[in-house]
Amino acid sequence: MDHVSRRQLLIAGSAATAIGVLGEEPVTAEDSPHPTAVPVSPVRMVGDALGLTPSETAAVLEDLASGGPITPDWYSVGGAVDELERQFALELGKERAIFMPTGTLANHLAVRALAAGQGRAIVQAESHVYNDAGDCVQRLSGIPLIPLGVGRRDFSLAEVRRVVDQTATRRVPAPVSVISIETPVRRQYGATFDAGELERVTTYAKERGIGLHLDGARLYVQAAYEDRPVAEYAALFDTVYISLYKSFNTPSGAILAGPKSLLDGMVDTRRMFGAGLPAAWPFAVVASRYVKGFFDRFRRAVAVSEAFFAELSTRDAFAVERIPHGTNVARVRVAADDLRAFRNRLMAEGIVLPPPSGGSFWVTVNETWNRRSASDLVDHFEAAGGT
Amino acid sequence: MDHVSRRQLLIAGSAATAIGVLGEEPVTAEDSPHPTAVPVSPVRMVGDALGLTPSETAAVLEDLASGGPITPDWYSVGGAVDELERQFALELGKERAIFMPTGTLANHLAVRALAAGQGRAIVQAESHVYNDAGDCVQRLSGIPLIPLGVGRRDFSLAEVRRVVDQTATRRVPAPVSVISIETPVRRQYGATFDAGELERVTTYAKERGIGLHLDGARLYVQAAYEDRPVAEYAALFDTVYISLYKSFNTPSGAILAGPKSLLDGMVDTRRMFGAGLPAAWPFAVVASRYVKGFFDRFRRAVAVSEAFFAELSTRDAFAVERIPHGTNVARVRVAADDLRAFRNRLMAEGIVLPPPSGGSFWVTVNETWNRRSASDLVDHFEAAGGT
Amino acid sequence: MDHVSRRQLLIAGSAATAIGVLGEEPVTAEDSPHPTAVPVSPVRMVGDALGLTPSETAAVLEDLASGGPITPDWYSVGGAVDELERQFALELGKERAIFMPTGTLANHLAVRALAAGQGRAIVQAESHVYNDAGDCVQRLSGIPLIPLGVGRRDFSLAEVRRVVDQTATRRVPAPVSVISIETPVRRQYGATFDAGELERVTTYAKERGIGLHLDGARLYVQAAYEDRPVAEYAALFDTVYISLYKSFNTPSGAILAGPKSLLDGMVDTRRMFGAGLPAAWPFAVVASRYVKGFFDRFRRAVAVSEAFFAELSTRDAFAVERIPHGTNVARVRVAADDLRAFRNRLMAEGIVLPPPSGGSFWVTVNETWNRRSASDLVDHFEAAGGT
Amino acid sequence: MDHVSRRQLLIAGSAATAIGVLGEEPVTAEDSPHPTAVPVSPVRMVGDALGLTPSETAAVLEDLASGGPITPDWYSVGGAVDELERQFALELGKERAIFMPTGTLANHLAVRALAAGQGRAIVQAESHVYNDAGDCVQRLSGIPLIPLGVGRRDFSLAEVRRVVDQTATRRVPAPVSVISIETPVRRQYGATFDAGELERVTTYAKERGIGLHLDGARLYVQAAYEDRPVAEYAALFDTVYISLYKSFNTPSGAILAGPKSLLDGMVDTRRMFGAGLPAAWPFAVVASRYVKGFFDRFRRAVAVSEAFFAELSTRDAFAVERIPHGTNVARVRVAADDLRAFRNRLMAEGIVLPPPSGGSFWVTVNETWNRRSASDLVDHFEAAGGT
Repeated sequence: MDHVSRRQLLIAGSAATAIGVLGEEPVTAEDSPHPTAVPVSPVRMVGDALGLTPSETAAVLEDLASGGPITPDWYSVGGAVDELERQFALELGKERAIFMPTGTLANHLAVRALAAGQGRAIVQAESHVYNDAGDCVQRLSGIPLIPLGVGRRDFSLAEVRRVVDQTATRRVPAPVSVISIETPVRRQYGATFDAGELERVTTYAKERGIGLHLDGARLYVQAAYEDRPVAEYAALFDTVYISLYKSFNTPSGAILAGPKSLLDGMVDTRRMFGAGLPAAWPFAVVASRYVKGFFDRFRRAVAVSEAFFAELSTRDAFAVERIPHGTNVARVRVAADDLRAFRNRLMAEGIVLPPPSGGSFWVTVNETWNRRSASDLVDHFEAAGGT
Repeated sequence: MDHVSRRQLLIAGSAATAIGVLGEEPVTAEDSPHPTAVPVSPVRMVGDALGLTPSETAAVLEDLASGGPITPDWYSVGGAVDELERQFALELGKERAIFMPTGTLANHLAVRALAAGQGRAIVQAESHVYNDAGDCVQRLSGIPLIPLGVGRRDFSLAEVRRVVDQTATRRVPAPVSVISIETPVRRQYGATFDAGELERVTTYAKERGIGLHLDGARLYVQAAYEDRPVAEYAALFDTVYISLYKSFNTPSGAILAGPKSLLDGMVDTRRMFGAGLPAAWPFAVVASRYVKGFFDRFRRAVAVSEAFFAELSTRDAFAVERIPHGTNVARVRVAADDLRAFRNRLMAEGIVLPPPSGGSFWVTVNETWNRRSASDLVDHFEAAGGT
Repeated sequence: MDHVSRRQLLIAGSAATAIGVLGEEPVTAEDSPHPTAVPVSPVRMVGDALGLTPSETAAVLEDLASGGPITPDWYSVGGAVDELERQFALELGKERAIFMPTGTLANHLAVRALAAGQGRAIVQAESHVYNDAGDCVQRLSGIPLIPLGVGRRDFSLAEVRRVVDQTATRRVPAPVSVISIETPVRRQYGATFDAGELERVTTYAKERGIGLHLDGARLYVQAAYEDRPVAEYAALFDTVYISLYKSFNTPSGAILAGPKSLLDGMVDTRRMFGAGLPAAWPFAVVASRYVKGFFDRFRRAVAVSEAFFAELSTRDAFAVERIPHGTNVARVRVAADDLRAFRNRLMAEGIVLPPPSGGSFWVTVNETWNRRSASDLVDHFEAAGGT
Repeated sequence: MDHVSRRQLLIAGSAATAIGVLGEEPVTAEDSPHPTAVPVSPVRMVGDALGLTPSETAAVLEDLASGGPITPDWYSVGGAVDELERQFALELGKERAIFMPTGTLANHLAVRALAAGQGRAIVQAESHVYNDAGDCVQRLSGIPLIPLGVGRRDFSLAEVRRVVDQTATRRVPAPVSVISIETPVRRQYGATFDAGELERVTTYAKERGIGLHLDGARLYVQAAYEDRPVAEYAALFDTVYISLYKSFNTPSGAILAGPKSLLDGMVDTRRMFGAGLPAAWPFAVVASRYVKGFFDRFRRAVAVSEAFFAELSTRDAFAVERIPHGTNVARVRVAADDLRAFRNRLMAEGIVLPPPSGGSFWVTVNETWNRRSASDLVDHFEAAGGT
């Protein structure tokens, strides 16, 4: 039994982990009925990844282990972790990379290292680091964050200039020493930071010696949508963080890539933060497997989804709203009396939707969309819907 | 094929992870030849646990998954993690427990919570928190540590009193607000904190409202040696940390148990520190399995080892040195010209020793000792040794 | 020779300390000619206070010492410092007050105490604490500051609500625990925080248990302008800081007033910050003297200035621009070819202007305006000006 | 009336500030009767300095101001503060010096700057920075302090080596980056750090790039006793702190001297800590006056005291105990029934003793000893004592 078929077999029950549009909100029991019969290869229109269940994850690990000996790391150093770090350093065009157990820590330690004990960091008002990290940068590293772009996906060079210039009038110097940019922006439904502003802001920062960090948790998704190598995005920044669990199906884990001068001592900082896992190889080997070929697979899924959205829009009972400057999130409105019943009917057919929200479904494109054709998906939507 | 036999099958090659006496030092390639034929059930005289290889770990996970659906946690909350936390809270006699990815963080957050922003913490000069945690308590939480008992396994109430009294003469109050005690002490070869002093120090601390933390990374080992429930040790302290990876075969993980008032908000602190793993169930389910019955299994292994040490001491070519007040570490001296050859001969017979150090072997007792009888082990030592 | 006449005698040369409109910018040598003959009682249209020279300060201290024994403090505790603290606690209607060497520290320790290790603090984007304190609150106490009201004198309840509500959607709680408000606002030329918003914001905060701090460095100035007791302003807040050196002629010093529960342990925090001056009585006795009767004296000065501004506005060569919602800062435009010569002519007559800025003079009202009548001042302006 | 006579006149009442042997403990009212007639020039056998009263301090300031214009500083920068800093930089042989309001902050910022965000600092267990500064270095700068030499005046190179070597075995590097040494040691009654160990420790530290700070609060006292220039002591260290208020009669203030590279940016750090006094010239001018000629004057006082101690020791009713390796503190035992009465009799004669402690008086040598001859002092002791 090969890897794929084993996984397909195990995949029954995976619908239990349906995840909301923001990618991290738990689904209540009420919203997640466990259908008795889910087909082996569901298209999961939730989350950025395959949404592996524990069973599937165990099967993947066993499959990887049976393919040859895995060299374990030692406190997150060496072995499979080292291989993963090299793999990402190469893809991202950086001197080196380091494994982190979470993206929260990856962002934190990047900003901490770039600030080097001095100055303030500019971040997006709607970014993860500003909203969802417990103010760790400020509380544990004492680095003030200046949020720009309230309610928006990005900020402008003009806003950056204003902040930098204002510090010139302060009595005690508190210069901007870091700019951290998240793209795509989770809290803006996957909208991307404007490419022109990105170019202008990073150019400006480099001229002034301001450190640049890219929170690219979902950068691979954006890269696939824009058909550009991830290294092109990373090249504009000193450091870049990539989530392993979001796109590459690990239970946990993140990669931080950047220059050796910043990252070589970070093993010790990671340890100090209590993040030097005694063994991280289970995360590393899974990510290593799935990052290979991700770009092509994801582009195919995008193609399926685009065809699906285009076709579905022509049907009377459905409307598709795209996010301006968006990536893999879209809103599907369904003219149906009972959206939960609609969802249950699709789930029985192996198509997993998130719970309805405001009379519609926020769907997310990921690799599972490759499991069906666009027309097949449209047919099922039609069959499940109607009045 | 049941779980055990599968693991036995996969166990070939496990000798590669032989680990030195201090439990965490990597073994150099030179010291770790991969014998072509290792018996299926080695007795590994290194490390506190079974020393599972990646293959074995994957097999264990698959085995657990096939035994019924695993409920995944959500950012280290709920599901299998919740079950694990309840299991340990119950065993340790505490109101609740919380999963931490590492012991470094468990110790840190315990001291941080107990100090509550005030005062100093007394620790052992030879403790993990003082020597091996990158000064995290001091650097990230600003809590001064006062080390007592240089070169020793413990400290005395008299020493504690002196420090507490001295603070009364300081111009600015800096009271002792926490005492953290590690037992057994890794840097003292598993020697235990003196029970009488432990009683006196903890009684004294409670009278003064000084918070008490137990670094019980290997507490289950001590409990097995002393034939006392772990809850009896934990009862003397407000909080207690238990390592999951040291005794319970997880790749990573720790438990911190204590009162609800301290631990209920710690999920957020854990997240702030970048330690809220998106999924921790792979660690939780493995630990849950192995903690069940650990006490009895380990006591049997102790019996095997005690018989082995006693018998081996009667043989001319061997001497056994026990650690005063020690637990599962002992030094075995071998009258042989080539200790590496001796070690290789034993390894071929399924008995794994650490690399020789100073003309002897520091051996550690763990559950794998149950795989042979004492007399069988002695016979193999005799056969491998001699001149 | 009584106190006043001695000070008048010594006052020659005081023009050397002319200070710009922002109250703290040094005057360059070029701008500060030392006229050979300055009348004994200059009207100094710069700074909030009398602008005592070192000679004058020494004379004041000697005068105070000769009036009866001064009880020195002991490390900023007791004696004259205690008297000062009681005096201000009474005036401000607070349980107690504590001396601080600087306003920077007074603001910092107030926010630190109110936050109690939790949450974020909302501040004005144009406030001293956000712009001129080296990010001390963030760097040394790890408390994130959220700036509101860019380019404005205040912020609205709606803006506060938005921030508070937004934190409810964060993954890790980071509630707003403190709101700090500065009024009048130095960086807005003495404009005051809108009274209606102040009422609404403080009411809202109290309902939610959010700590409230008033940076009232120049609160006595605002109180005099609005003819309200300072205690009425202070009553809306938990803590209030008053600058001693700005209005009360001390070389340095500040008062922080508030509840005993917050301030009783602050002597130790002050010491920890290296701010427990071995003796602070020189600052305390000067402030104690000048705060007595300040309100009435300053209101008289305001009356003089208002008459002066009104009359001057009727003259062709002059225009007076008031700050909207302002207090004691105004802009005087002069139709003259050489503003420096104009200024020098006035200085020879005992009227000290700040250096010209943008074709005008930013003048500040303080107690020295009581030394002349409005008409006398206008006459001198006319005589010095013209074309 | 010249300066000295004015001060003599004002000096009546100065006995009220008698200060205990540790130099900083307040005297209770009971212990400090205000004699109705104190001679104009008391010999104050308490404290390191003249013990100026507020009246005397005011007189000194007035005297300094009348001697020519004092240039005020601007937020502790420029003017009289600049002059003071240059004066001390020159005397101490350092590139520059910076004024600090307290020694607590001077020590803190020196260690903070030398550590540069890395490593631990070794200090004396009996030092001021370890005992009397509220753990500021640890709490506000996150720098762990390692105390050596419990109950002693110094520590040895061997102890330093042990600590440095031990860090080599830690899992996470936490190197010793600073050594701070206090001499003389206040908590050891003015005993000095052993000169040989000082040489060895500082040589060792320099070889390893470990930063060196000298807490020389009373260094001028030691230098006078050992007849060596202060610069010779300072030359062994990167930075050195000198108390201004202890020896040089200012109400408050300290000097930190060292290399430009460390101190040039410290104005901003000082400001961030809330220690940028708006005006510090009152402290600066007093210190500038008294540091001139201090060495010679103090050596004369030492000579008086040595003759006094020698002669007093020959009298039956008295015994003098010197501190081993001590400086200006000694214990005088008096065979008298009522030590308070004895003390009062001497005070009436213009000789001020500290309150009795344990049947003896801890006397301190300072410049006031120059006001009488040794034989005159002995005569008064004899006359006041007896049985």
